[in-house]
Amino acid sequence: MLGPETLHEHLGDLRSEVEEALVKLVDTQMDGPAAAAMALSSSILLAGGKRWRPVLTLLAYEAGGGVTTAPAMDLALAFELIHTATLIHDDLNDGGKLRRGVPTLHTTHGNAEAIIAGDHLFVLGFGLGGRYDRPIVDAVSATCANIAAAELKQLRHIGDIATSPEDYYSIIEGKTAGPFETSCRAAGIVAGADKSTTTALAGFGLEVGLAFQIVDDLLDLTGDEAMGKPRGTDVHEGKMTLPLIHALTMLHGVQRVRLSEILAAFNDNLWDELTALLESAGSFQYTHQLVDNHLGRALDYISKLPESPARRMMEELSALSVGRRS
Amino acid sequence: MLGPETLHEHLGDLRSEVEEALVKLVDTQMDGPAAAAMALSSSILLAGGKRWRPVLTLLAYEAGGGVTTAPAMDLALAFELIHTATLIHDDLNDGGKLRRGVPTLHTTHGNAEAIIAGDHLFVLGFGLGGRYDRPIVDAVSATCANIAAAELKQLRHIGDIATSPEDYYSIIEGKTAGPFETSCRAAGIVAGADKSTTTALAGFGLEVGLAFQIVDDLLDLTGDEAMGKPRGTDVHEGKMTLPLIHALTMLHGVQRVRLSEILAAFNDNLWDELTALLESAGSFQYTHQLVDNHLGRALDYISKLPESPARRMMEELSALSVGRRS
Repeated sequence: MLGPETLHEHLGDLRSEVEEALVKLVDTQMDGPAAAAMALSSSILLAGGKRWRPVLTLLAYEAGGGVTTAPAMDLALAFELIHTATLIHDDLNDGGKLRRGVPTLHTTHGNAEAIIAGDHLFVLGFGLGGRYDRPIVDAVSATCANIAAAELKQLRHIGDIATSPEDYYSIIEGKTAGPFETSCRAAGIVAGADKSTTTALAGFGLEVGLAFQIVDDLLDLTGDEAMGKPRGTDVHEGKMTLPLIHALTMLHGVQRVRLSEILAAFNDNLWDELTALLESAGSFQYTHQLVDNHLGRALDYISKLPESPARRMMEELSALSVGRRS
Repeated sequence: MLGPETLHEHLGDLRSEVEEALVKLVDTQMDGPAAAAMALSSSILLAGGKRWRPVLTLLAYEAGGGVTTAPAMDLALAFELIHTATLIHDDLNDGGKLRRGVPTLHTTHGNAEAIIAGDHLFVLGFGLGGRYDRPIVDAVSATCANIAAAELKQLRHIGDIATSPEDYYSIIEGKTAGPFETSCRAAGIVAGADKSTTTALAGFGLEVGLAFQIVDDLLDLTGDEAMGKPRGTDVHEGKMTLPLIHALTMLHGVQRVRLSEILAAFNDNLWDELTALLESAGSFQYTHQLVDNHLGRALDYISKLPESPARRMMEELSALSVGRRS
């Protein structure tokens, strides 16, 4: 049985492996005709980031029976590149100023260069994902089409207080949990795992991804310096996250009217009032409960896999990724 | 020997085949979660367009020995989807108002939806391209990375009167001729053609692509209603195309000073003066000559292939695509 310290050390090693592979990928591009585009997008790609997606992909690969990480590395990097591409385009779309602690590309280089940089990372990511067999290529493509679909749906629900929990779940499944699910499933396939193992890995990815995004949205309301996320970006933007949707459902009369007024014209002076309304509706508690449920289901899925260091690390990583460990 | 009418009929058939395959692809997406994104991007994708890229891909496949078009159709569509994705993002970046005769997406749906729609088509295109073997996937990925690189270079040379012919060629090779080259080469590989045939097809694609883009840039200065291109978009934007670069090189003294003044602050009242300067520098004649040279080299490449209806159609298409036939 591995203790937490050894686990964290192993996770750190995997993260370093991913980081090195990213640096190497960037370096190979710096010799060719796409050097300027790579220089541009690498300023965001290599600016840090927790690398949850590629690390989880490598762990799923190991838990699925893979031995050395090499055969799964292109897959792991593909998801990180595609994720970073969507971050660059998202930041442009919602006017984000900082990403991974550095100024966003559209603020430093203008919208046109930010669009091109995102396109370039998409291309690189797909190039790596395209190296696998047809079922994986099709899954990556469908997953990424769903990311675009979810971004569109999210955009169209900005400021819409009629957004339902189903709308919310379809958005976070499309943009976050779906990619986690596909990367874990594909990692299992690359590892040569049997059907029940890949299904368990995929289920784990989906549930962790849901928990991860719900926590991310929750932290936007509560703030958490340790997680490096400033408070209120989503609510300023009119993004309808789960605690807000829950409160709009639970509150009645003047409280509900007041909540919709606050959301329609939010400013930082309204924090205390917003928080009190969400508390009174039980929305924080409800949201925490859902996170625990998803995390529990994620752990259930992998509990069926044979005991292994990778499985233990997946358990640890899932707790870490939703802030249940520091 | 096929007469021109039969050739045009065959080309029309191929174009219809591509059109039907595109409609079918869109339809399959309209059932799933990406329906809204597909509805958005299909408004541009299915708004017409000459389909040079997919038709040429299918012809190269047939000239390379392919019999039925089916095995090359995904490849052909991939290039059309990726091309349309870049058009949507380009139009946003340069403020284009019309595309394929319909209003551009960013004007009807805003920048954010246009970025997402382009991303969605990229994803679909890569999904289709990713279905082939590794050498093709790598070539498609590298080609698309070069598109991004070329777009970036083009953007950074906006208004730069020091832009050299080499800069111009690297831009049009990256954004246009490279994709033509790769689609023809990949079509040959899919057809199981030998090395010398795929090299000839690739060379044909590169040269036709260069001729095609140079003509496109030339028409921006001369205008051509029949080709459906309004005059002056590029010059208003500060895009440095070959006739301008040539004139800046050839003219001296007051003429050169005046040309740079005109380019720095262009408006429609300056057309006659600009045209006279380009005429006086011999820039139109020079550019036409280069188009003929590229076209000649393209035909040389395929003259080595066995005589076939597909080869005859490639000859005809290359003449058509640069306006040498109507």
